[in-house]
Amino acid sequence: MTYPLLAGIRVIESSAFIAAPLAGLTLAQYGADVIRFDLIGGGIDYNRLPMMPGGRSLYWTSLNKGKRSVAIDIRKPEGRDLLRALVTAPGPEGGILLTNVPTPWLLHKALVGARPDLISCTIEGNADGSTAVDYTVNCATGYPMLTGDGTRAKPVNHALPAWDLACAYQAAFGLTAAILRRRATGEGSEMRLALSDVAFSAMSHLGVLAEAELLAEERRSIGNDIYGAFGRDFATADGERVMIAAVSARQWRALAETCGIAEAIASIEAALGVDYSREADRYEGRDIIASLVKRWVEARSLAEIASEFDAGGVCWGQYRSVRELIADDARVSTASAIFDEIETSGVGRHRAAGATIRLSDMTRGETQPAPLLGAQTDEVLSEVLGLPQTAIGALHDRGVVAGPEADPLFPQRGEVRSFAN
Amino acid sequence: MTYPLLAGIRVIESSAFIAAPLAGLTLAQYGADVIRFDLIGGGIDYNRLPMMPGGRSLYWTSLNKGKRSVAIDIRKPEGRDLLRALVTAPGPEGGILLTNVPTPWLLHKALVGARPDLISCTIEGNADGSTAVDYTVNCATGYPMLTGDGTRAKPVNHALPAWDLACAYQAAFGLTAAILRRRATGEGSEMRLALSDVAFSAMSHLGVLAEAELLAEERRSIGNDIYGAFGRDFATADGERVMIAAVSARQWRALAETCGIAEAIASIEAALGVDYSREADRYEGRDIIASLVKRWVEARSLAEIASEFDAGGVCWGQYRSVRELIADDARVSTASAIFDEIETSGVGRHRAAGATIRLSDMTRGETQPAPLLGAQTDEVLSEVLGLPQTAIGALHDRGVVAGPEADPLFPQRGEVRSFAN
Repeated sequence: MTYPLLAGIRVIESSAFIAAPLAGLTLAQYGADVIRFDLIGGGIDYNRLPMMPGGRSLYWTSLNKGKRSVAIDIRKPEGRDLLRALVTAPGPEGGILLTNVPTPWLLHKALVGARPDLISCTIEGNADGSTAVDYTVNCATGYPMLTGDGTRAKPVNHALPAWDLACAYQAAFGLTAAILRRRATGEGSEMRLALSDVAFSAMSHLGVLAEAELLAEERRSIGNDIYGAFGRDFATADGERVMIAAVSARQWRALAETCGIAEAIASIEAALGVDYSREADRYEGRDIIASLVKRWVEARSLAEIASEFDAGGVCWGQYRSVRELIADDARVSTASAIFDEIETSGVGRHRAAGATIRLSDMTRGETQPAPLLGAQTDEVLSEVLGLPQTAIGALHDRGVVAGPEADPLFPQRGEVRSFAN
Repeated sequence: MTYPLLAGIRVIESSAFIAAPLAGLTLAQYGADVIRFDLIGGGIDYNRLPMMPGGRSLYWTSLNKGKRSVAIDIRKPEGRDLLRALVTAPGPEGGILLTNVPTPWLLHKALVGARPDLISCTIEGNADGSTAVDYTVNCATGYPMLTGDGTRAKPVNHALPAWDLACAYQAAFGLTAAILRRRATGEGSEMRLALSDVAFSAMSHLGVLAEAELLAEERRSIGNDIYGAFGRDFATADGERVMIAAVSARQWRALAETCGIAEAIASIEAALGVDYSREADRYEGRDIIASLVKRWVEARSLAEIASEFDAGGVCWGQYRSVRELIADDARVSTASAIFDEIETSGVGRHRAAGATIRLSDMTRGETQPAPLLGAQTDEVLSEVLGLPQTAIGALHDRGVVAGPEADPLFPQRGEVRSFAN
C-alpha cells in the first residue's frame, strides 16, 4: 500500500545497492515522486541476485518499486547536463537529490548554484569518504563476536544487512526533516550520512558503547538468549522450534503461569534469594528458568503450545524458513494491510510490501511495481524539464537517453526506442 | 551532536524498550522538544541492564538522551488528565504523541476531540495488536536459519535488535512526514506501525520474499559469506581476523590486484568459462576465490594487510570487540563529528553519539544527556500547560507529579521534591 503523505515532492535518486534505493523506496511509498536516474542498460546493481530465469533481478525490482526511471548516458556531457537539470529543476517541492554515488559533477556544491535551496542527502561508507559496506562495518561493531556462539576466532556475521536498513530509514527521515525546514525557512540542506556512523550511533543509543567504556566489561556471546532478560529458543515435541521471550513482568507472569512453573519458581526464588519478576534476576537465572520451560515445551506439539501460549498471553514465535513464512503466515499475505499482489514487468505477479506505517484517516493506494529501465524517460523529460517531443526525440537519436528497455517476459512489446536499439 | 532541523516541534513520548524511545531520541537529536512521560520511580524499562554500580541503567540513559522528563502518577485520574493535557496542549507544533504503550485512555480517539489536528504514532508488536518483540519477530523471518551456520534444528538469533532499530527510524520518518502534511493541510494523522510489518516489509524490499515465492528456492545458510557477490572473513598471520568484500566490480579489481591474484583468476576464468567481474559468477566461484585470497591474507600481519588494502582501495574491515572498538577506533572518538563527551546524571562522563546525519550548513549543538526522572516536571507543567507554581506545588503535595529523583552519584543534591519523599 502507499499513502500520499509526501505527495507533490520530487526526489531524484542516483543510487545503487541497498541503503540509498531503500531510502528512495520509503519516500516513494509515502507518495513522493521518486525519479531514478539509471544508466542505459542498468547500473552496477541492476543484475544482482536473486534473478528471474528471464533475466530480471528480484533484488533491484524489489528495491525500486513505485519509482520512475529515466535512462541517461552520463558519459556524454549532454547526459550529465540533463541529470543536473532534473535535480535543479524549478518547483517548490523539487530540488532534492538522494545518492550514494558521490560523482564529482553531481555533488551538492556543483548544483547549488543552479538551485540555492537544494536538498541533498549523500550516503557514504565512512564519514571520511572511504569505502565501507554493511559487512565491513558490522565486523567493527563487535556484534559478530556476540552472535550465535560467535568468538574472536570464529565471529558470526549477520545475514540481514541491518545497518543498510537503519541507514535507509534515517536518510528518508533526514530528507523529510530537511523539506520541513525548507518549507519554513526557504533554506536547503546538504546532508551526509555514513553507514559506519549509523552502526556506531545505534550502539551508543543501545548503551552498548557506554557499557564497554564505563564498566570495562566485554559482553560475551550468549547464543540465542536475550541479553538482560529471559528468552531463548526451545524444541517442541514434534520437531519444531519456538522462541520465547519474557522481557516485561507481564510476559514473565504469563509464561510462568502458562507453563505451570509458578510454584517451582517461587521455591527457587526463596531458596536462592532472588526475584525473577526482576529482569536482571531473570537474566542471571536464565539457565534455571530455561530448564523448567524446556520440560514443558518439549512435552508438547507446536499446535498445543500455540494454543496455550496464545490463550495465556505468552510472547513467543515460531522459527520458520522464508518459504514457510510466505506460504503460511497471514502477516505476509494480502490479508495484511501492507501487502499487495503486484505485477512487475519481467517478473510477473507476486506479493510485495508497501508503506509499513498505517494511517487510519488517509486513503491507501496500491503498492506500485518497479519500472522497466527508462520507462519514464520521455514523460519525465517532458514534465520536469518541459522539453518538447522533438527535443526528446533528438536526445534519443544522439544516444543521450533511452527507454524503455524491452520487457524480458514480453519482448514483442519492445518499443521503437528500446535498449535493443 | 544535534541539529535544530525540527526546532519548535514538541513531542510527548510514552514509551518503553527500544523502538519508541529510539524514535523519540532521533527526533530529539534533530532539535525537537521530546518530553518523556515517566512513571514516578520509572517505568518497566527503567532498570534494564547494563546498569551502573550506583544503580542507573546505561540502556535507559542511552536511549533517552536529550529528552525532558515529566514524572506523573497515572494511577490517579488527575495524573491521566495532566498527561492528556500535555499531548493536546495548544501550539501549532505540539499535539504529537509517540508511544508503544496503547493505554486505552491515551489512544488517538480519546485525544483527538481535544486536539483535532493530533498526530500520533503507535508502535505495536503485530498489526492485530498482539505482542511481539524483536526476537519473536526475527524467528519468523527465516533469517536465524541463514545466519552463521544456522539450520532449522539450530537457528542463530541476531544479537543486534535490528528490527527495533529499523522500526524506530521509520517512526521518526513517519512523524516528520505527518508534520509536513499538517503544516500543509492542517490535518492530523493517526499512525500505527507494527514491528513485524517492519521486518516483513524489509524482506519484501530486499527481494527475499519474492525469491521464496517466485523461484521456490530456500536460501541456505552460507556462514560468513556475502550472498550474491564475493566476501568472507579470513585469519591473518598474527591471529587477527578481517572481513573482505568485493561487491562492486571496482572492489573486485582492487582485491584481485592487491592480492596479486589477477593472473591466476584470469586462468581460472578461462578454464571454467566464467567471468568473475560479474557478481553472480563471483558468488558461484566464492570458494575458489577465497582459497587464493586466504593464501595471501594468512601470510601477512594485520598491519601489512591494512597498509596494502588501504593503498589498493580494497573494501575490508577488521573484526573487533566492543571494547577494542571504543578504545581504538577514531570513528567512535570525539574526533568523529557525531560523538561528544557528555556527563549523564548518575552515570558520569562518557562518549555518546548524537545526530548521525551531518549537515554542512547548520550549526551543530552538543549531544545532550538523559534527564533524571522528573527533572523537568515543573518547567514543563509551567511552560506547556501554563500552570502557576502554586498549582504545581499542590500537584506535588497530592503525589500526582514528582521530580527530580535524587542523582545516585550525588544524593546530597536531592531536591525537596525528590522521589525519596
